[in-house]
Amino acid sequence: MRKLYAIGIGAGDPEHLTVQAIDRLNRVDVFFVLDKGAEKADLVRLRQEILDRFVTREYRVVLVPDPPRDRTPADYRAAVADWHAARASVYESVIRSSLSPDEVGAFLVWGDPSLYDSTIALIEAVLARGNVAFEYEVVPGISSISALVARHRTTMNQIGRAVQLTTGRRLAAGWPEGVDDVFVLLDAHTTFDRFTSEGLHIFWGAYVGTPDEILISGPLTPALASHISQTRAEARQRHGWIMDTYLLRRPAE
Amino acid sequence: MRKLYAIGIGAGDPEHLTVQAIDRLNRVDVFFVLDKGAEKADLVRLRQEILDRFVTREYRVVLVPDPPRDRTPADYRAAVADWHAARASVYESVIRSSLSPDEVGAFLVWGDPSLYDSTIALIEAVLARGNVAFEYEVVPGISSISALVARHRTTMNQIGRAVQLTTGRRLAAGWPEGVDDVFVLLDAHTTFDRFTSEGLHIFWGAYVGTPDEILISGPLTPALASHISQTRAEARQRHGWIMDTYLLRRPAE
Repeated sequence: MRKLYAIGIGAGDPEHLTVQAIDRLNRVDVFFVLDKGAEKADLVRLRQEILDRFVTREYRVVLVPDPPRDRTPADYRAAVADWHAARASVYESVIRSSLSPDEVGAFLVWGDPSLYDSTIALIEAVLARGNVAFEYEVVPGISSISALVARHRTTMNQIGRAVQLTTGRRLAAGWPEGVDDVFVLLDAHTTFDRFTSEGLHIFWGAYVGTPDEILISGPLTPALASHISQTRAEARQRHGWIMDTYLLRRPAE
Repeated sequence: MRKLYAIGIGAGDPEHLTVQAIDRLNRVDVFFVLDKGAEKADLVRLRQEILDRFVTREYRVVLVPDPPRDRTPADYRAAVADWHAARASVYESVIRSSLSPDEVGAFLVWGDPSLYDSTIALIEAVLARGNVAFEYEVVPGISSISALVARHRTTMNQIGRAVQLTTGRRLAAGWPEGVDDVFVLLDAHTTFDRFTSEGLHIFWGAYVGTPDEILISGPLTPALASHISQTRAEARQRHGWIMDTYLLRRPAE
């Protein structure tokens, strides 16, 4: 039977690869790579560096076209579901046409496949369509938030307190109830700008773990928020893309 | 100057070790190991297996006595703070007496050092006392929650939703506001028992990543909660200890 892996390859530093991930990389016949166009050529290059460094066997790379996506939908969840369905259809046909029944395929996922990534849902959606059978395994990776706090040498949680992982979109609706530490992912709009008068501390990072890493932390004043926004905009223009995340902390009394 | 590492060694599977962790392990002169007594001999053995497998240089192991801790305090945070202060004092003297000024020491941390672990706070507390100077670096690891969801082949978050990481103690106070996915750590009291009539799904795991791994998942009915509690009690008696965690999910409509 065909086998698929969803392999977490860490947050950007090739040294985040685990022994398990390297073992699985070396069982793979076909790596399926989403073709998202030129804007993230840096990530394509970084992924190839990881394969060059750690894989010692022959393999094929199959580029998979990414269906168009509505980035400003009225109904966010419905739009994402439509997009997943279109991707599942594309992947089903690519798996059937590119992977022999006795071969092993893999999806490489930045960070950890479990955190704000659609690969597992995509694999489940292909399975649910019932047109192609395969086994699959998820290989955990160092997540963007683990990498962020490690580089800042701080913890995710304060002692005995809760932590929330959320999106920029949700944070824009207000500070979450009952938590003092909030990780914000997928935030294209520097939503931290709205929380500069609340005694918070921010730990921000972009391109964490790569040679282009930028780390900024401190009390979240209007001046620091402005500094981060400006740094972010400049870096994004310079690289043509940005991957950043941050932790907002309300220090326990 | 002395150098210290806080190294995440993953959730129990030696293959969770990252390339970065293995690199740092091989720079270490002294591993500081908390001596917590005999009850977790399995973990001591597993940690030694990791060192035997991945470290190719000579090193020393220094056992550090763990100060006594009040496990049922009236003021949880104050008790933990007292305990951290006592540990900082012990570690300061051990670092000064066991690590030469040009040597490298390390703390090995199960999972990820950033998640419900006191090592980073301990190192900062030793630094803050000002009696011994050192550089230090945090090496992220595969966390217990990443390992849990990978083995269950599910994600931490539902599409576009928030996730909460919390403790059994906090969950006992009620379901957190505004989230559909709650990871519960440090729960000695099977607090999921209180949520069996709410249409939740549970993903539970113990000893995840080890040969003793137990995984149970499904709709959180009273029968399943009872099955997990019984499984947990039996496993704890058999091994003399248990390390478990779980995800409670309220499926999005």
